[in-house]
Amino acid sequence: MSNNTLNTFSVNSKRITKGALKVPFKELTLSNGEKILLQTVEGCPENFPNQPKITSGWTESYQDGDARKVKKTQLDYAKKGVITPQMEYVAIRESFCTSDEGKMAFTPEDVCNTIAQGRAVIPANINHPEAESMIIGAKYSVKVNANIGASAIGSDYSKELEKLRFSLQFGADTVMDLSVGIEGIPELRNAILRASPVPLGTVPAYEALDRAEGNIKKLTWDLFRDTVIAQARQGVDYFTIHAGLLHDYLPYAAQRILGIVSRGGSIMAECMMSQGTENMAYEHFDELLEICHDYDVALSLGDGLRPGCINDACDKAQYGELKTIGELAARCYKAGVQCFIEGPGHVAMDKIEENQRLQEKYCNYAPFYTLGPLVTDIAPGYDHITSAIGGSQIAAFGTAMLCYVTPAEHLALPNAEDVKTGLITYKLAAHAADLAKGLPGAKIRDDAMARARADFRWFDQFALSLNPEHAYKVWKSQMPDNCSHEASFCSMCGPRFCPIRLNRVLKNKFKDTL
Amino acid sequence: MSNNTLNTFSVNSKRITKGALKVPFKELTLSNGEKILLQTVEGCPENFPNQPKITSGWTESYQDGDARKVKKTQLDYAKKGVITPQMEYVAIRESFCTSDEGKMAFTPEDVCNTIAQGRAVIPANINHPEAESMIIGAKYSVKVNANIGASAIGSDYSKELEKLRFSLQFGADTVMDLSVGIEGIPELRNAILRASPVPLGTVPAYEALDRAEGNIKKLTWDLFRDTVIAQARQGVDYFTIHAGLLHDYLPYAAQRILGIVSRGGSIMAECMMSQGTENMAYEHFDELLEICHDYDVALSLGDGLRPGCINDACDKAQYGELKTIGELAARCYKAGVQCFIEGPGHVAMDKIEENQRLQEKYCNYAPFYTLGPLVTDIAPGYDHITSAIGGSQIAAFGTAMLCYVTPAEHLALPNAEDVKTGLITYKLAAHAADLAKGLPGAKIRDDAMARARADFRWFDQFALSLNPEHAYKVWKSQMPDNCSHEASFCSMCGPRFCPIRLNRVLKNKFKDTL
Repeated sequence: MSNNTLNTFSVNSKRITKGALKVPFKELTLSNGEKILLQTVEGCPENFPNQPKITSGWTESYQDGDARKVKKTQLDYAKKGVITPQMEYVAIRESFCTSDEGKMAFTPEDVCNTIAQGRAVIPANINHPEAESMIIGAKYSVKVNANIGASAIGSDYSKELEKLRFSLQFGADTVMDLSVGIEGIPELRNAILRASPVPLGTVPAYEALDRAEGNIKKLTWDLFRDTVIAQARQGVDYFTIHAGLLHDYLPYAAQRILGIVSRGGSIMAECMMSQGTENMAYEHFDELLEICHDYDVALSLGDGLRPGCINDACDKAQYGELKTIGELAARCYKAGVQCFIEGPGHVAMDKIEENQRLQEKYCNYAPFYTLGPLVTDIAPGYDHITSAIGGSQIAAFGTAMLCYVTPAEHLALPNAEDVKTGLITYKLAAHAADLAKGLPGAKIRDDAMARARADFRWFDQFALSLNPEHAYKVWKSQMPDNCSHEASFCSMCGPRFCPIRLNRVLKNKFKDTL
Repeated sequence: MSNNTLNTFSVNSKRITKGALKVPFKELTLSNGEKILLQTVEGCPENFPNQPKITSGWTESYQDGDARKVKKTQLDYAKKGVITPQMEYVAIRESFCTSDEGKMAFTPEDVCNTIAQGRAVIPANINHPEAESMIIGAKYSVKVNANIGASAIGSDYSKELEKLRFSLQFGADTVMDLSVGIEGIPELRNAILRASPVPLGTVPAYEALDRAEGNIKKLTWDLFRDTVIAQARQGVDYFTIHAGLLHDYLPYAAQRILGIVSRGGSIMAECMMSQGTENMAYEHFDELLEICHDYDVALSLGDGLRPGCINDACDKAQYGELKTIGELAARCYKAGVQCFIEGPGHVAMDKIEENQRLQEKYCNYAPFYTLGPLVTDIAPGYDHITSAIGGSQIAAFGTAMLCYVTPAEHLALPNAEDVKTGLITYKLAAHAADLAKGLPGAKIRDDAMARARADFRWFDQFALSLNPEHAYKVWKSQMPDNCSHEASFCSMCGPRFCPIRLNRVLKNKFKDTL
């Protein structure tokens, strides 16, 4: 695709900001003058030069050696009814891409109340000033997380930063660095943090085991705690910690076909089995809460017993752990630590609503964050699709954030192309759920697309697409050379049989009928 | 991928047959001795040399010039409680890939009763002896149709036959030839029919308009009828006819953003508008029923007013037409003509169940056959996914057959690669729905996959996949050279951090606990 053609799409896209906080949006001006606002982040490489980040310096904080600590978390403020700039920022961000100027779909007061109820989270480590505020909660637009990170035989620094770039370009709302088994994990994470305008999550158990040289017997609480502190001081915005995986649940997991498939969960389980102890993150949960509170790191309570196949879903292992996680969520809330809850996994479609409802019941409506779920086991190479099917459904039922799954799932470490495909797939799944939830204005972009289709404004259609370059390429591939971008047909039906053209006749004929 | 490697997958796959009717299956023998049966058709090129087709010659029929006619349709037989060989054949076909030998999930009596209720259809034109019997109905496994066919600027014979080959290889249950605007449509269709072991559907209005030289004013009933007769005599198994699109509904369609997007629907509407007449297929419906009865062609009552965007879904145009279609379905039933009902289209997820339930209500549970539905409009290039999300859901609610959508939808005529991707996507969506419906034994293949994962039997995993070659390629791409196909890791977590390995320890430790 030539640069010229690319410009034809992007020339009508400009950065604008809304409100005193200058919340950035991408404004598309279509060829008929219609304007559409899309969420964006400043660090998004397809956009605009970085400017000083706008969410830093708002929270009361103090220096502690080489890092900063907060006096109050977003949850602390919310409980007191104090509206922080972060809350105002996300209210604008959620409102203006889904509704008209004039009427904000979400007010800062609403955001504050929802956080105070424990039903939404703004992950915002004081040491990650590059991050722009975003909110995770069932009331708001469904968010998508992209997992990146290297493994011992899969990647290197530059590849991981390329994955980050793709993730941002295609709309990741958060990113998790899941690097494991390589040299220099902290340095790679630092590079990712400094380049990431979206919140970053990690699973500290991975680095802890690396610090123990892969020897599970050496994985002590001190080492685990020090890892958590070091990552918090670097700026990680949320930690996945599998503190609900208790020893009591292991016999149930042993009955499964696939036992434990969570990498973090298996580390905790191996540790418990080899050392004959209870889950150390559970035993020392209050200490973890203190650390998280110090930096306003959110806890993503991990489901170490998430089912790894259809057969293992919804069993005593999974639901037992979920109940314990619910108790831990209540302790997070009491301690002023923001938290959300991780969910499955592999679940057949008839059990998806049950998963959402039980999570709400046990965890008192703390935001749910699921991996898919995948609705069948038989499609390796296409598990971005099997999981988007389940993900869109559970999000329509109320799940707040979806962890994407790429086409490489079950087979290989995703490469940059997999990251891109996974993200686009999940952005469409999340958007479908926004439509199903009836989010104010979610349909604006769909309607603009439909009008562009009715008018044969092909380049407007591409600009409104989740992946404009790809849509253009498919369209162009079979069109005659030098055809107009206002050609009133495509190769599907050919020039003589396009049904869309009839609509002009139809509209004219019946314009005064009803 | 080398042929050697390919053989490693296929060496354990053999054709077997079940019952006196020799219903063929593909039997996979995994490396641990487990056997898995998969549905297949004889014409499937990856399988076995063709043998004389087994469904021909069973139905009472007589020669009429160069074609045959039937005395009774499958529905006629069913109403009288006569179990035909076709019914027995599909009962075996549906049972043995979903349950153990010994207990048939579906009996021929059950099939006969379900057809007699109008809740299932065996499309079986007496002039398509190449076709093997298959059943479409909510009680049975969800079926997938693949659309192929050339347009004036999109394809040629050899490409269409390649698409047919891909469709069969990846499991299409029926194929529709939607060729339009090219020379030699009847010859192409004949080539497809003679090569197709699955039922073939068409939209006769396309060829009728071609016969009228694209001039809608020349499209008379005589010409339409002659087209239908010619196609029936060639062997087409089902016709999509948009007989429910009445003049009364046009003003509602005119209110939409996208009016009419069905190609066949727009032909009927243009005809009505330009000639000032009612829908000719509606007016002459009894004649159509006679023709369909003569050859046992099934009617697929087309939704000419299916919504073309989220905004247009579930309006008076769509539901008005559906109600008329329901009346036509009752007339089909009375006339002994098998029928099923086409459905949307573009529908947000919160309206999907409503679509299924209304269809059941208006059409008295005649099988529903939907195009997706697509759950958002903003993802051109990825509409196989947006539609698989909706398709899997509506199939779980009871839709009997899904018409696939390819990645080229809205942009171009699909090429062979698009056909392949579309089919695999829909096979996984259909299978996910089978799981959700709790179809007896649907989980057998998933469980075999899960066990193969637990044991690191990689090649068994590939063999159980919907696309073995692709799964192998992704896995291999990042594995060290010469690694074993029993390597107890993949590049996702690397050799040191695989959670699956822990499961052996877990199982040993707790084997006697519960």
